[in-house]
Amino acid sequence: MSFGALRERVCAANREINRVGLAILTWGNASEVDREAGVFAIKPSGIEYDKLTPEDISVVSLETGEPVAGALNPSSDTASHWHLYRAFPEIGGIAHTHSPYATAWAQAQREIPCLGTTHADAFYGAIPCTRPLTQAEIETAYELNTGKVIAEHFSENGLRALEMPGVLVSAHAPFTWGSDALQAVVTGQVLEEVAKIAAATLAIDPGQGGVDQSLLDKHYLRKHGKDATYGQEKTA
Amino acid sequence: MSFGALRERVCAANREINRVGLAILTWGNASEVDREAGVFAIKPSGIEYDKLTPEDISVVSLETGEPVAGALNPSSDTASHWHLYRAFPEIGGIAHTHSPYATAWAQAQREIPCLGTTHADAFYGAIPCTRPLTQAEIETAYELNTGKVIAEHFSENGLRALEMPGVLVSAHAPFTWGSDALQAVVTGQVLEEVAKIAAATLAIDPGQGGVDQSLLDKHYLRKHGKDATYGQEKTA
Amino acid sequence: MSFGALRERVCAANREINRVGLAILTWGNASEVDREAGVFAIKPSGIEYDKLTPEDISVVSLETGEPVAGALNPSSDTASHWHLYRAFPEIGGIAHTHSPYATAWAQAQREIPCLGTTHADAFYGAIPCTRPLTQAEIETAYELNTGKVIAEHFSENGLRALEMPGVLVSAHAPFTWGSDALQAVVTGQVLEEVAKIAAATLAIDPGQGGVDQSLLDKHYLRKHGKDATYGQEKTA
Amino acid sequence: MSFGALRERVCAANREINRVGLAILTWGNASEVDREAGVFAIKPSGIEYDKLTPEDISVVSLETGEPVAGALNPSSDTASHWHLYRAFPEIGGIAHTHSPYATAWAQAQREIPCLGTTHADAFYGAIPCTRPLTQAEIETAYELNTGKVIAEHFSENGLRALEMPGVLVSAHAPFTWGSDALQAVVTGQVLEEVAKIAAATLAIDPGQGGVDQSLLDKHYLRKHGKDATYGQEKTA
Repeated sequence: MSFGALRERVCAANREINRVGLAILTWGNASEVDREAGVFAIKPSGIEYDKLTPEDISVVSLETGEPVAGALNPSSDTASHWHLYRAFPEIGGIAHTHSPYATAWAQAQREIPCLGTTHADAFYGAIPCTRPLTQAEIETAYELNTGKVIAEHFSENGLRALEMPGVLVSAHAPFTWGSDALQAVVTGQVLEEVAKIAAATLAIDPGQGGVDQSLLDKHYLRKHGKDATYGQEKTA
Repeated sequence: MSFGALRERVCAANREINRVGLAILTWGNASEVDREAGVFAIKPSGIEYDKLTPEDISVVSLETGEPVAGALNPSSDTASHWHLYRAFPEIGGIAHTHSPYATAWAQAQREIPCLGTTHADAFYGAIPCTRPLTQAEIETAYELNTGKVIAEHFSENGLRALEMPGVLVSAHAPFTWGSDALQAVVTGQVLEEVAKIAAATLAIDPGQGGVDQSLLDKHYLRKHGKDATYGQEKTA
Repeated sequence: MSFGALRERVCAANREINRVGLAILTWGNASEVDREAGVFAIKPSGIEYDKLTPEDISVVSLETGEPVAGALNPSSDTASHWHLYRAFPEIGGIAHTHSPYATAWAQAQREIPCLGTTHADAFYGAIPCTRPLTQAEIETAYELNTGKVIAEHFSENGLRALEMPGVLVSAHAPFTWGSDALQAVVTGQVLEEVAKIAAATLAIDPGQGGVDQSLLDKHYLRKHGKDATYGQEKTA
Repeated sequence: MSFGALRERVCAANREINRVGLAILTWGNASEVDREAGVFAIKPSGIEYDKLTPEDISVVSLETGEPVAGALNPSSDTASHWHLYRAFPEIGGIAHTHSPYATAWAQAQREIPCLGTTHADAFYGAIPCTRPLTQAEIETAYELNTGKVIAEHFSENGLRALEMPGVLVSAHAPFTWGSDALQAVVTGQVLEEVAKIAAATLAIDPGQGGVDQSLLDKHYLRKHGKDATYGQEKTA
């Protein structure tokens, strides 16, 4: 099997989507890029998680967006992943799910304000929501345009992919990313929990805005960046 | 055992209702039709899912609505299933549950607006809610009239059963359907998740209406119909 | 062990409280009466469900309310159960939990309106909420007075215990009952699901009132009473 | 292994955080103090619960707040625990999680009113919420200042740690405590359930205030203090 280690990691990350409850049925997919080899590996379309094997994982060219290994059709969302790997060269893995609370915020077409330290530990500010796609963007190259509208939002708002490792696509659902496929799924899990707590917060007090910048800085920076103190090693 | 393969599939589909959390106790039933044989098989009334065996499954005549095989009384909702198989000749299986969020929308007597792609992937537009039954319809042939009020709603609103594979019965609960019993249960699972996400969306933003037709077309049609691209085979 | 079969059933019913998620920690208790023997058996106070054995179950005199068998202290709610067995001679088992949605309605001090057939299948009308206890009732014989305020509500409102097998105690939590301890727990499970769906219904549409009497009659009476058609046997 | 029994108890309590669903990933930590030995033991930073062993547990000096045993970095929240053990000499264990409903109330920056007996059984009054930390308190010695703002709230409001065994830190999350680490986690579980039921209560009836003092006294005092009657032994 070509790209064996990559496909094993991507298979495991996709199964993790199901294990942690981010997707029912086949409602999510994870991928990981090997930039030296010029490919990324992604879940095949419509296959159930508990039947997924590394051999089933599709391998796609980073240059052309076309499959180069694997017998099955890659995920219908492949072009979205492809564009994000090209727009964000610093990321190594992507996860896309329809986890319920993150999807509810996406359907409400609202960014998730940073209401506390749970959020600030992982996302450096409000989790953005893209603009809706236009009718023309939907009708032609829809999945590619989904990637483009994400990249456009980050570019226009000066957001950096590693500081803001997730986004809500308007009327659709979340994408998250990280250093590899498994980390992208973990960030999807964090996003879902943050989205759930934010919805519960606004139900208790609809007027809550967001935390002060100093609290955001403290929590984000103690876990990320050169002066991080969380965990067992400094992150470089 | 007569109709053995059919009863095994229906038994498995009913157990799936419980396994995926769509019903507590005995609050749901699934059936499947064999149109050549002129019968449908359905869960017996009041039997717990984990004790259910293929031999317990009731077989009912599609012509008369009366039992033709099986020692137990068929589901109290049998006449509703019977009418739907006759009104919708294109369907092969039906599931009825009291899953909590779909039931909440039914009790609110409101259709579920299409608020995003999760919904559009499975239902081609708002998931309808029937009118309430009249007192006369409740008092005589209630279960049959439940089927009739569903068929009436589809007929009067120009809805097609395969494009809109589910409905909310006002003040009651959902029915879903598909190519067979298991697919009807899967659609019930999708409906419950869509109903939950829609409720959460309106809690975040009560003003949300529904997605544009172009997004609905894109998502519904990439999974269904002759030009579908999702999964590993074209659906004809 | 005296009253062995009774204590085994009560032990199993208490473990069921935990198994179906109606109580965390030790937040619930079930009991069953043997009217011929003049006793009821009840969970001991503060013992965890997964450590509970039939020998642990307390046996209490129906005449005096005092323990007659079992080495442990009976539940702190024993006097509430005792009064209900005397006020409602037609019941055989009682369950008391702090299941979250039923408790939320009790804390809101509101009856649960009958919003659909899920409710009507088990409860013949709105599930009542008692008045708050007075300061004097709280300070002296509190647990006994909890039973009394339930019986008072049923008496003053012409409710019959078998048609309305549950109640919310204001600012406290639900009690349910039935033919035996296990049936009381099952009814507690139904009450929690009905309470959850009712809360979700009002979140979607705060204006919902309640179903028509004819729908209530149809659903309640097809499962209960001399003309019931649900399940595998007529109930006498 | 030094402090072996203490580290085993703290390891078990941390695993319990995960087992009862109070934290995903590594979002919670528990500690226990040995006041004679002048140390407390706490979870190491960033280690997953199912990989945690007693040897991994960090031991910290109660006098200096510095590690004295264990090869791993202690939790990033160690200084908060340290301050609480010094401010509240009557407590033996502390738990800190980001459990969703308690965190939602903390993010809403609102105390949880005592709306019923479920709450009154464990907390003698409204569960307090601290003031937000100032920018200066966030920027320097943040974790220590988190402990200080809790102690300040208790001191200024005349609250006693054993009667009010938990607190919400504004825009952050809950801390709970008790006689040992496991009891602190159990109280965290109670707080989460109480927070969930309170949110559901206000969703049903936004106007609910809180129970009368007599009901609070009855429920709190039947489980706690010298005249407690709950369980199998008098608590002294």
